[in-house]
Amino acid sequence: MSHPPTLEFWFDPASTYAYLSAMRIEAEAASRGVAVRWRPFLLGPIFKAQGWNTSPFNIYPAKGRYMVRDIERLVEARGLPPFRLPVSFPASSARPARTALIAADHGMIAPLMRNLFTAAFAEGRDIAAEATLSQCLAEAGAPDPVTMLAAAGEDATKDRLRSETERAAGLGIFGAPSFIASDGELFWGDDRLGDALDWAAQL
Amino acid sequence: MSHPPTLEFWFDPASTYAYLSAMRIEAEAASRGVAVRWRPFLLGPIFKAQGWNTSPFNIYPAKGRYMVRDIERLVEARGLPPFRLPVSFPASSARPARTALIAADHGMIAPLMRNLFTAAFAEGRDIAAEATLSQCLAEAGAPDPVTMLAAAGEDATKDRLRSETERAAGLGIFGAPSFIASDGELFWGDDRLGDALDWAAQL
Repeated sequence: MSHPPTLEFWFDPASTYAYLSAMRIEAEAASRGVAVRWRPFLLGPIFKAQGWNTSPFNIYPAKGRYMVRDIERLVEARGLPPFRLPVSFPASSARPARTALIAADHGMIAPLMRNLFTAAFAEGRDIAAEATLSQCLAEAGAPDPVTMLAAAGEDATKDRLRSETERAAGLGIFGAPSFIASDGELFWGDDRLGDALDWAAQL
Repeated sequence: MSHPPTLEFWFDPASTYAYLSAMRIEAEAASRGVAVRWRPFLLGPIFKAQGWNTSPFNIYPAKGRYMVRDIERLVEARGLPPFRLPVSFPASSARPARTALIAADHGMIAPLMRNLFTAAFAEGRDIAAEATLSQCLAEAGAPDPVTMLAAAGEDATKDRLRSETERAAGLGIFGAPSFIASDGELFWGDDRLGDALDWAAQL
């Protein structure tokens, strides 16, 4: 085999549990010889098809309060900075997701997303703001963030993100993070990252 | 300390993920020196307050299909029998939950629930049926299942289950299984059983 096994990592940049996976997936995949394909999409249209007009963590307050506490415990156990929920939750994730698609074309989606997730959930910043996106791109090694942000705003990129979201729905994805192995096996949630990588590794 | 640390295990007898926890919680608790208090309640009224008239696994088909596959993988990994979804899902769980309350009074709630969960999710049987309840009680060591089932049907037992469900909602419980340590710390889902036991053990 000339290609390593691959796992698709489907995420919405506004997802708190996708943040947890983003911070560890590359190291955990590398230790199993698995390559990661980062695939941004939008939960909004998928939630809308389920009749939700915002995050379930907002619609169901007990679930939302629990999620915050759960993430607080998990970041502490993993040595990540204290958790912060951005003032506006969920963030408007279309622009960050389109920027991630452009970053993928330049081979820098993983560092960009680690920077954006950290900005959102360790610093409470607005990841839809141009200043945040520009700084996170620069710190990911982008030589020209302005041009990349312009590309992210083009109609072709918007179409691409729409296609990705439709593809996610077609694959049975209903939340984030989701992981899909090359045989189509679907795993949902940061809690399943290890199982998903183990599955991908043995294909 | 004369009393061991305790973890409350809140479950609805119709919950698939509570099944997974029920089959392992006593062994995992014992290995940490933690005592388990089994606390049956009904998800129905809690879901209803969230605007759901049935299980979210029925309301959201992609989530329901994923749940079945997820449980299939987990039971295989844990050496449990192949998973079966009962013909009627979720089961009507009021009668099983009331029977569990009576079984708790007789110190046999853990074996009763392992029997009922196995009947439901390994054998696809109807756990609201008298024959299933009676057999599961007998196999749990009940000398007189008929008298226990009669007690389960009394108004006092119905009131007790209603109180327990209200108490669950008051504790912030929104799904099952849920685990609550003696300091009030809440953990949701079979995936958090180990964390919940570790938390309880260090109090």
